[in-house]
Amino acid sequence: MLFHVRMDVRIPLDLDPDVRAELVARERAYSQELQRSGAWPHIWRIVGEYSNFSVFDVAGNDELHELLSGLPLFPYMDIHVTPLATHPSDVNA
Amino acid sequence: MLFHVRMDVRIPLDLDPDVRAELVARERAYSQELQRSGAWPHIWRIVGEYSNFSVFDVAGNDELHELLSGLPLFPYMDIHVTPLATHPSDVNA
Amino acid sequence: MLFHVRMDVRIPLDLDPDVRAELVARERAYSQELQRSGAWPHIWRIVGEYSNFSVFDVAGNDELHELLSGLPLFPYMDIHVTPLATHPSDVNA
Amino acid sequence: MLFHVRMDVRIPLDLDPDVRAELVARERAYSQELQRSGAWPHIWRIVGEYSNFSVFDVAGNDELHELLSGLPLFPYMDIHVTPLATHPSDVNA
Amino acid sequence: MLFHVRMDVRIPLDLDPDVRAELVARERAYSQELQRSGAWPHIWRIVGEYSNFSVFDVAGNDELHELLSGLPLFPYMDIHVTPLATHPSDVNA
Amino acid sequence: MLFHVRMDVRIPLDLDPDVRAELVARERAYSQELQRSGAWPHIWRIVGEYSNFSVFDVAGNDELHELLSGLPLFPYMDIHVTPLATHPSDVNA
Amino acid sequence: MLFHVRMDVRIPLDLDPDVRAELVARERAYSQELQRSGAWPHIWRIVGEYSNFSVFDVAGNDELHELLSGLPLFPYMDIHVTPLATHPSDVNA
Amino acid sequence: MLFHVRMDVRIPLDLDPDVRAELVARERAYSQELQRSGAWPHIWRIVGEYSNFSVFDVAGNDELHELLSGLPLFPYMDIHVTPLATHPSDVNA
Amino acid sequence: MLFHVRMDVRIPLDLDPDVRAELVARERAYSQELQRSGAWPHIWRIVGEYSNFSVFDVAGNDELHELLSGLPLFPYMDIHVTPLATHPSDVNA
Amino acid sequence: MLFHVRMDVRIPLDLDPDVRAELVARERAYSQELQRSGAWPHIWRIVGEYSNFSVFDVAGNDELHELLSGLPLFPYMDIHVTPLATHPSDVNA
Repeated sequence: MLFHVRMDVRIPLDLDPDVRAELVARERAYSQELQRSGAWPHIWRIVGEYSNFSVFDVAGNDELHELLSGLPLFPYMDIHVTPLATHPSDVNA
Repeated sequence: MLFHVRMDVRIPLDLDPDVRAELVARERAYSQELQRSGAWPHIWRIVGEYSNFSVFDVAGNDELHELLSGLPLFPYMDIHVTPLATHPSDVNA
Repeated sequence: MLFHVRMDVRIPLDLDPDVRAELVARERAYSQELQRSGAWPHIWRIVGEYSNFSVFDVAGNDELHELLSGLPLFPYMDIHVTPLATHPSDVNA
Repeated sequence: MLFHVRMDVRIPLDLDPDVRAELVARERAYSQELQRSGAWPHIWRIVGEYSNFSVFDVAGNDELHELLSGLPLFPYMDIHVTPLATHPSDVNA
Repeated sequence: MLFHVRMDVRIPLDLDPDVRAELVARERAYSQELQRSGAWPHIWRIVGEYSNFSVFDVAGNDELHELLSGLPLFPYMDIHVTPLATHPSDVNA
Repeated sequence: MLFHVRMDVRIPLDLDPDVRAELVARERAYSQELQRSGAWPHIWRIVGEYSNFSVFDVAGNDELHELLSGLPLFPYMDIHVTPLATHPSDVNA
Repeated sequence: MLFHVRMDVRIPLDLDPDVRAELVARERAYSQELQRSGAWPHIWRIVGEYSNFSVFDVAGNDELHELLSGLPLFPYMDIHVTPLATHPSDVNA
Repeated sequence: MLFHVRMDVRIPLDLDPDVRAELVARERAYSQELQRSGAWPHIWRIVGEYSNFSVFDVAGNDELHELLSGLPLFPYMDIHVTPLATHPSDVNA
Repeated sequence: MLFHVRMDVRIPLDLDPDVRAELVARERAYSQELQRSGAWPHIWRIVGEYSNFSVFDVAGNDELHELLSGLPLFPYMDIHVTPLATHPSDVNA
Repeated sequence: MLFHVRMDVRIPLDLDPDVRAELVARERAYSQELQRSGAWPHIWRIVGEYSNFSVFDVAGNDELHELLSGLPLFPYMDIHVTPLATHPSDVNA
């Protein structure tokens, strides 16, 4: 089932640049693995912000929390989740 | 280019039921035509609300405003648009 | 899976009293049927407000939206849904 | 009597990891003791956040404040309390 | 136990003046009866607003909701309740 | 005349514990002296928060600001003041 | 003593024009009488809004509430009051 | 001098269509006259909303309020004004 | 022309006390010079807060920004400006 | 196509003054280059704030994000983007 997720990244400005680079690289790998698995079908950058709108496709709430809390940047993000249902006008549903 | 759109429908409770039914039917037809044309690739119901999250794929801002302001329910909706860019971790980009 | 739901009831003050009474009676019957089925395990009144905090236990997002949008008072309520996961300290989990 | 409590944990990112681990372990033990005593009948993780919705069952306001202010993570949390009453449609009331 | 209550009165401007006067008179009598009984020890007007801050002294949450939802103006008010505990510096506690 | 005051205490987590203890002790003494003088007739803890609702009884705005800005914890608090008037239904007025 | 007051006027669009004109004329006369008496030393229009920022000079909270609640437009306004004290840098204080 | 203005139009849905059409036509003529005079150098539609961001170039605050309060749609709009100064990096300043 | 300004001072708690004292002294001298020149006709303390409401009388937006950004405490303040126009009921206008 | 952008600068108060000066100088050069290229046709200072309202003229969302995220002060700013369309009353459209 689908969930809409907004992620706002707030990495402290004084974080060690190497630590930061390593975190961002791990985040990217983690995200791409989930995208390839089908669990994270959409990710878009919000223009002008260090933020994204994403859509997750998971078996349920527990799996979603496990995936999100496992994000390497999880301690540095504000995350807001909205459950999605099929829209009655969706031509693909 | 892509835009994220949230639509919250606020049809007055005392609207004539026939007028309402006709409006909702026209909205559905209008939405499905845009979905089939490729301009409205995603529409999801927000669980528990008379609202949707949508993604539009248009040539630019003027086309998007034309499509949104042409919605039969436009006078009865609060709409908020967020421009989207390609995410650097997107495996499909 | 579990969802936390806040419902704020806003019935227009000038609604016909008989219509209102009938709506409230149908809402009560609908709620109690779902409570008995196990889909709506908790409902609490928020002190001083015509509002409730509820917990729903459903198969997923689509079922939850179907149950909520079927509420007789759905057109008269503001509803906000929050997905819940098992808490790692929950002694009953 | 019942109270709805939302807790948002904000542990500083630069807290010593051992101090943090010890705090989290003490929080868990404290919470589980209250859960087993019946004073904290429900605790749910909010999906995607380091937050929980809980329900407390206590003799009154003073006991609730004593329990909450005694949480090992109390200095690191935003807490919001809402008093709950029996809902007139509750089939278990 | 004590609760802090804010009440904001929103009587529709087009309510029949006799109905309004009768409601306000019943509200006053109801409030004064509770004040005399000891359940409503404080009521203050917020300067410049049709609102009050009050303190209630009741046996618990259910009694408080019963008293508040019985207010003649209850359908015309926004009410927000905050539970109070003894302050450790209170010289009268 | 009476004023409603909300105080939210935000002492930095890394403040020296001795400095903190001394500040809190001075705050307590200062508050109790004002309570005994009649200038601070009510102080209640907000359940679950390091905050209080208070009522002050002073000659006017300048005296109130002098008392509040003299609080030992003043630099560590968010304070919001609301002027109160006699309520027309107050049985003690 | 001085109070800062913001008033936002919300006269219903469908109010009878004669009733409206009479209300506005009475408001003007009432305001000018208080200005001349010294109780309402400043009134400024907020550019682009049907709103004003005002300063009142009154003996205390009860007098201020009496003046504000007596405004002919009081039922049609949102009013917010902030108590003012002498500023330590004020060259006229 | 320049001012940034946001206008949100809220024409009641049940306004007579002829009255509405006449209001909108007068608004358009009024706006275009000010644009041609140089007092209203920029007007942009906010995509998806019945709103605009505008820039006004006027002699001062009183002139701006006179122009805005003279808008035929003024009673039907929420307007927010922000004063602008020359930016130190502006290549045209 | 007149502008309403709210200033909220947020000096970091760990700023060196001498630096702080020197800043506050310079702010006071700067403010009093502007008050004496007629550019800053009103300044009031907001009761209970390290904040003020002020009125400035300047030739225009650029002068106002120059004066405000020159405040010694400017880097430590949140400032919000509202342009004022003559009120039609002002007896002194 | 046009976009409205609000930028609020939040440079930490304890940033090294040389680093800060160098950042601000690079920001200025970057901004002026974009202004001269036509991509950043308007920039205005918000009076009293370290903030600006700007208008960008770009080929689309991806270009805008590239320009904004390349700002030397990007890590120190809150940015909010609003897409603009041609206004039907614009005399220059």
